[in-house]
Amino acid sequence: MDFVARLGLSIPLIQAPMAGTSTPALAAEVCNAGALGSLALGAIGPEEARRQIADLRGQTDRPFNLNLFVHEAPRTDLAREQAWLDALAPAFAAFGASPPPALETIYQSFAGSAEMLDVVLEARPAVVSFHFGLPDSRAIAALKAAGCLLLGSVTSLAEAELSLAAGIDVVVAQGWEAGGHRGLFDPDAADDRLGTLALTRLLARWGKLPVIAAGGIMDGAGIRAALDLGAVATQLGTAFVACPESSADAGYRALLASDAALHTTMTRAISGRPARCLANRFTQLGERADLPPVPDYPRTYHAGKALNAAAKAQGEPLYGAQWAGQGAPLSRPMAAAELVALLAAELALTRP
Amino acid sequence: MDFVARLGLSIPLIQAPMAGTSTPALAAEVCNAGALGSLALGAIGPEEARRQIADLRGQTDRPFNLNLFVHEAPRTDLAREQAWLDALAPAFAAFGASPPPALETIYQSFAGSAEMLDVVLEARPAVVSFHFGLPDSRAIAALKAAGCLLLGSVTSLAEAELSLAAGIDVVVAQGWEAGGHRGLFDPDAADDRLGTLALTRLLARWGKLPVIAAGGIMDGAGIRAALDLGAVATQLGTAFVACPESSADAGYRALLASDAALHTTMTRAISGRPARCLANRFTQLGERADLPPVPDYPRTYHAGKALNAAAKAQGEPLYGAQWAGQGAPLSRPMAAAELVALLAAELALTRP
Repeated sequence: MDFVARLGLSIPLIQAPMAGTSTPALAAEVCNAGALGSLALGAIGPEEARRQIADLRGQTDRPFNLNLFVHEAPRTDLAREQAWLDALAPAFAAFGASPPPALETIYQSFAGSAEMLDVVLEARPAVVSFHFGLPDSRAIAALKAAGCLLLGSVTSLAEAELSLAAGIDVVVAQGWEAGGHRGLFDPDAADDRLGTLALTRLLARWGKLPVIAAGGIMDGAGIRAALDLGAVATQLGTAFVACPESSADAGYRALLASDAALHTTMTRAISGRPARCLANRFTQLGERADLPPVPDYPRTYHAGKALNAAAKAQGEPLYGAQWAGQGAPLSRPMAAAELVALLAAELALTRP
Repeated sequence: MDFVARLGLSIPLIQAPMAGTSTPALAAEVCNAGALGSLALGAIGPEEARRQIADLRGQTDRPFNLNLFVHEAPRTDLAREQAWLDALAPAFAAFGASPPPALETIYQSFAGSAEMLDVVLEARPAVVSFHFGLPDSRAIAALKAAGCLLLGSVTSLAEAELSLAAGIDVVVAQGWEAGGHRGLFDPDAADDRLGTLALTRLLARWGKLPVIAAGGIMDGAGIRAALDLGAVATQLGTAFVACPESSADAGYRALLASDAALHTTMTRAISGRPARCLANRFTQLGERADLPPVPDYPRTYHAGKALNAAAKAQGEPLYGAQWAGQGAPLSRPMAAAELVALLAAELALTRP
């Protein structure tokens, strides 16, 4: 498939959805600059999704991507959750706060959500992408009938094979380097932790679906490397965090711009699912050997967000979900349109 | 530095040293085919090193690389070691065997080894490479005076900076994907687990030393990707394991050629240092939650090799140090010279 031609892109580049950090303005700027912008609908409800899609449509006529979280419904294990809240209580207390009395499912999975499916079908975006798993066959059929190109994030050949069987059009090979939530279908299964280079090449040699490479790519040289591995395009997230159009707060931007960017780590402690984060006080807490088992995603995230809010209110920025990939030290703060133009120029330079 | 021109190579490719798996015949075939062959001296003594170097010299006039392990001297912690041997005893018993009565330091580090330094200075190889750390300034000065180009394996920017300060000429960026022993200078320090793509690009953008990319690279597309990232050359190990010239045994070859190659894991249980291995019964054992702390490298390896010998004697191949990188599923068994020629042809095809 000629992914770039089908979408009329001028560069084989997707701005990663980045729930919590992307904005309609970011996606619009990326689209207008010739790449594929993405809106993350995974952590918001149908009403807010409609609002953001309208906002984006008001700023661009170009194709865009809507991203959905397709995780299994979380188990509600009250004993486990209470133990987790108890373990976090001293961290809350340090900021004069208390944990929430109980964890809540702060947002719903796209799996089985008729309401969110309606939102997406109404919007008829050029591209719909899935993270954490795949929707049922009825949803996939409906989205394909609406003309959407379907992308599925995978971390292994096994997940790519499931995606092929489900009718997904393109796989996003999410390497170990990638920032934010790791797309594992089952976060409790063994994870081979395949790096971007190995996973991209493995899936390209498999050859049954087009591959988009994601994880650690920050510049034109990285994009060219991914194309040479056989990818049809690339997905960059961390590169866009420092754009003024993202919703990253000052603490997140400062950490990303510092030497701290050299150190990222995979943690489950913030949200309940493995996610790559700049090493901070929350990831340190998550490494404590005496912690009880982490409750399910996204219920754990309820406490994670509350702890960050309590810390931030006291001027402590280092409890945030400061997601970043291993390429973080190569972040370059500039307007999104400028960044897309720079990436295109760098990519062009790699072919004399 | 034009690494390839300096060594007169016809392809930017080093055959990784692979202690225990490489042979003089493998290195010679690689050299004669236009790449840089390597002999691993890390796990053998000076006498055997002299023998292997002579063997290699008898088969090629081309430049080659001698690789040395520069780990800190292991601590001898008898209580910890006895607990480890006790924990392995049931696994030995399953094969009618017993653990060794005590662990021994089965080979010496190059650090401070005047005898091995003499061997290398006599040999005056075109290239000397270091793993696990760096030798002292006297050894480095002597090797440079002998005309050797010095390569240091690094897994992070911090290790690259130490290498620069020590006078190393070229860093080998060993990504998380790489098979065999991870080159961490301090195996007990925090490891950012940087993937090959992220680490190679980070060090290329740093720009203070030429970079050789290693980890997950299996074919011409992978080599081209590494060059795109700014590497001057690549180092491939797993790609050469299945060559008839390697000393890999039948069990290792069979596992590498099977679907088991999809799963590799980092384990300390075999040798005492983290190393990437095909998932097998030994790596499974290493994941048991009830294991006591692992003794130091290479003393742990004494028991690891003994357990493999006991298992193999009973027809069980799955306790071997079956090192492999994440690119293992892309292994192609063929003669080393044929593989080098194929890689060169594939690489040439990537530039139309």
